[in-house]
Amino acid sequence: MEERFLISNYLDIYGKLLTEKQYEIIDLYYNEDYSLLEISEHTGTSRQAVFDIIKRCNKTLNSYEEKLLFYKINKEKEEKIQYIIDNIKSEEINIIDRLKELI
Amino acid sequence: MEERFLISNYLDIYGKLLTEKQYEIIDLYYNEDYSLLEISEHTGTSRQAVFDIIKRCNKTLNSYEEKLLFYKINKEKEEKIQYIIDNIKSEEINIIDRLKELI
Repeated sequence: MEERFLISNYLDIYGKLLTEKQYEIIDLYYNEDYSLLEISEHTGTSRQAVFDIIKRCNKTLNSYEEKLLFYKINKEKEEKIQYIIDNIKSEEINIIDRLKELI
Repeated sequence: MEERFLISNYLDIYGKLLTEKQYEIIDLYYNEDYSLLEISEHTGTSRQAVFDIIKRCNKTLNSYEEKLLFYKINKEKEEKIQYIIDNIKSEEINIIDRLKELI
């Protein structure tokens, strides 16, 4: 479940570096919860090829995050901003709204 | 100059996607202001190869930014945070310090 969540996030961030077909298959698998067989039928790709693409793209997306750390860096920033929002005095509503735009 | 500034920023963000040798050459050219000849001597690479690597990597880094937009997105976020910092009441020094950590 944790892995599914991470890959789904990596896909949001790094998805444009995949081919259109790779993106479609990974999206169906991790975001739409399609089975390998359903993806195979939906995309006209053999089940084995679907399996291979998911495996390879999983590795590719993890490798982008290992190198670039955008998910990690953004998450840490968002947590810091959330901390400010949670702790700021309630009369500062305008600041809170502006901070929320950053997340 | 604008291009040099942008490529230098893209190198900070996407540099880990280049090979070590590509990174070294681009860094010497855009950050250290070495000439092609100086880079050629420093790295033991022909001047023509240095030229080709700079040209190709320039294209590669621009392509990463076109697809992923991390420089653009971060810059916009930093400007929004700077706006808050510039406009927040001066007594809120603690909030300002925390916001500065985000930039």
